[in-house]
Amino acid sequence: MTTTFETLAGHLAEVGRHCYERGWALGTSGNFSAVLRKDPLTLAITTSGVDKGLLEASDIVAIDAQGRVVQGSGTPSAETTLHLAIVRSRGAGAVLHTHSVWSTILSEATGDGSLTIEGLEMLKGLTGVGTHAHREKLPIVENTQDWIAAAPRIEAILREHPEAHGFLIRGHGLYTWGKDLAEAKRQIEILEFLFEVMGRKRGIAWQQ
Amino acid sequence: MTTTFETLAGHLAEVGRHCYERGWALGTSGNFSAVLRKDPLTLAITTSGVDKGLLEASDIVAIDAQGRVVQGSGTPSAETTLHLAIVRSRGAGAVLHTHSVWSTILSEATGDGSLTIEGLEMLKGLTGVGTHAHREKLPIVENTQDWIAAAPRIEAILREHPEAHGFLIRGHGLYTWGKDLAEAKRQIEILEFLFEVMGRKRGIAWQQ
Amino acid sequence: MTTTFETLAGHLAEVGRHCYERGWALGTSGNFSAVLRKDPLTLAITTSGVDKGLLEASDIVAIDAQGRVVQGSGTPSAETTLHLAIVRSRGAGAVLHTHSVWSTILSEATGDGSLTIEGLEMLKGLTGVGTHAHREKLPIVENTQDWIAAAPRIEAILREHPEAHGFLIRGHGLYTWGKDLAEAKRQIEILEFLFEVMGRKRGIAWQQ
Amino acid sequence: MTTTFETLAGHLAEVGRHCYERGWALGTSGNFSAVLRKDPLTLAITTSGVDKGLLEASDIVAIDAQGRVVQGSGTPSAETTLHLAIVRSRGAGAVLHTHSVWSTILSEATGDGSLTIEGLEMLKGLTGVGTHAHREKLPIVENTQDWIAAAPRIEAILREHPEAHGFLIRGHGLYTWGKDLAEAKRQIEILEFLFEVMGRKRGIAWQQ
Repeated sequence: MTTTFETLAGHLAEVGRHCYERGWALGTSGNFSAVLRKDPLTLAITTSGVDKGLLEASDIVAIDAQGRVVQGSGTPSAETTLHLAIVRSRGAGAVLHTHSVWSTILSEATGDGSLTIEGLEMLKGLTGVGTHAHREKLPIVENTQDWIAAAPRIEAILREHPEAHGFLIRGHGLYTWGKDLAEAKRQIEILEFLFEVMGRKRGIAWQQ
Repeated sequence: MTTTFETLAGHLAEVGRHCYERGWALGTSGNFSAVLRKDPLTLAITTSGVDKGLLEASDIVAIDAQGRVVQGSGTPSAETTLHLAIVRSRGAGAVLHTHSVWSTILSEATGDGSLTIEGLEMLKGLTGVGTHAHREKLPIVENTQDWIAAAPRIEAILREHPEAHGFLIRGHGLYTWGKDLAEAKRQIEILEFLFEVMGRKRGIAWQQ
Repeated sequence: MTTTFETLAGHLAEVGRHCYERGWALGTSGNFSAVLRKDPLTLAITTSGVDKGLLEASDIVAIDAQGRVVQGSGTPSAETTLHLAIVRSRGAGAVLHTHSVWSTILSEATGDGSLTIEGLEMLKGLTGVGTHAHREKLPIVENTQDWIAAAPRIEAILREHPEAHGFLIRGHGLYTWGKDLAEAKRQIEILEFLFEVMGRKRGIAWQQ
Repeated sequence: MTTTFETLAGHLAEVGRHCYERGWALGTSGNFSAVLRKDPLTLAITTSGVDKGLLEASDIVAIDAQGRVVQGSGTPSAETTLHLAIVRSRGAGAVLHTHSVWSTILSEATGDGSLTIEGLEMLKGLTGVGTHAHREKLPIVENTQDWIAAAPRIEAILREHPEAHGFLIRGHGLYTWGKDLAEAKRQIEILEFLFEVMGRKRGIAWQQ
């Protein structure tokens, strides 16, 4: 809790460049945040329009619970309301949003509102999951360019799926979170592995 | 506008090696240009037959609006007329041409003269696109070994598709451009992501 | 046989980070062991819950034949009984367990209890195999979260398949081994190549 | 022609490690040679059983036209007769043999004795090819573990396909060559790109 804004901004920039290198946040896509202070709530978050391969600490601002910039300069991500909703409803310490090839494909591969992954050992990499018999149901939210208007819908979905470790936005990507940046980053890695398995499995003839 | 030929040639060589490393310009494939001066038009462009993994500033020449070498030594790319046509018709500051696996596949995957990509958030990485609801229609041009003869056809296609951010040559690859090298390079990254999504989607069983 | 625990722990940590980099042990998945002494049997093995990308020698403990920690601190992997069973039944000097995308997919792609690979030159990379005409039959074991209870089943499978160079756990990954760490690591590389060939082959239309 | 054995062995080792890094020569797979002297014919070639990721100049020997070691120590590759046959019949200065995932798959994807690639711009990366309209027909040879007995068959195939830039061995991999190591290495890169396009194309639904 004694982390300074500068230190946290540096860690966020590092996570962002890592996501770029893995192909999860190409161009200016993706946005990342971490809680700097819980009371009053202060969130460090990436600014809009920055190339994630070049992300620096100076591309991060601190905002309050209403999304107003309180430290640093720049326009916070257009998806700031999503980050704040997740922090509030999940008590998350970090929220990461990525756009990978497989999450994009899977977000469009099902007609209904969720993607279910079950029976795979790698599920145990998700926080609190202790068995491969786990059934992870990730909600799929329709995409929009007005996240302020969509915030109540997102909050409702988070309430309806209290056990989900993330959600997908259709044709857009993944939101996941953790108690800190390391946990959130590990969870992307796990979910991306699972998405790749699910996506590739659909491309192969099933039985020998 | 005060960039020297040497500096610009160095940047072009760097972009070319980057494209090689990403698998977008293997062997001697691909060619790259950037505007050195607008009046009279002077274009820095890669010479023919150079291995893109070894591209150096000395492999770049400056040419005039008729494609004659005015600085450096070597034969400008055989596709020089395409670069000049794009600079003229789009006011581009940089033109990049790459040969990736997915652009090659998609250029042959449709019988008609274009590839349409729509509904994906990553489209917002294209210059001037503000919503995932954007519909990008990339013309597909038949391949040839005589680009001087084909120049009027290319110019007609560019006029007919004033909103296209690039075009594909069948069995060959992608042309895209931007106001400068950084923008053109980001646009390749975005389009290659979209091509990979489109190509992989076709390989999977669609509905759960 | 004069290797110290510290040296061996360092080598195991290096192999683990290598597996992480190749995408075979993302997050906290995977576990790795090597025999420190044969008599009395002492095994160096990764502890539970460590991120494999950050694996250090201090994340390794030495255990005895009953799985009790005799050197270092931490909880040995929950799959310790599997490592001990393989060392006992195969005389292995190193046991590596990885979770790759292709091994996960193939472990679920067949309804019966094994995966057969034959006719490929790369099979010669497996210890003792001298011809592409080799037929490798890898048993597939059902997954569980209680490996102590499952140990007799695993030992029976190892006895029934005396020529297998590894086995798969369904929805989980690969176990393989070798006389030392270098041999076991090479065997993962060979098997992962073969898995990728088998998996991709199923995704393509077979005859021209 | 004044290259020393030591220099050439160093270049061969470098090419081998590069092929390993690209996934074209995992484990001990692959073998590589280059002509040291034409008269009498002396060939530098990798020795048998060496991990290609660790290939050093000391893992290379020089052999005469009968395959006898004349410099360095070690057993020349079991496929030495193939290298000598290619050098003789094609006048090659370097011969490279790789085992990639896509070449393995394509070598088994057709029932007849060849793989045809046509209409792709990347074909122009092959030595002497000046148009995408080129039709490359790569013979596919059945695999064997006795290449001395198979040498006449290989020589006959090379005579029957005088324009082929390489050949595939079924379930095994690619042989290609060039006037020197740089040309042969570029040709692998081009052919591997073409194999990936051909392999992935078969996995997707063709028409939009």
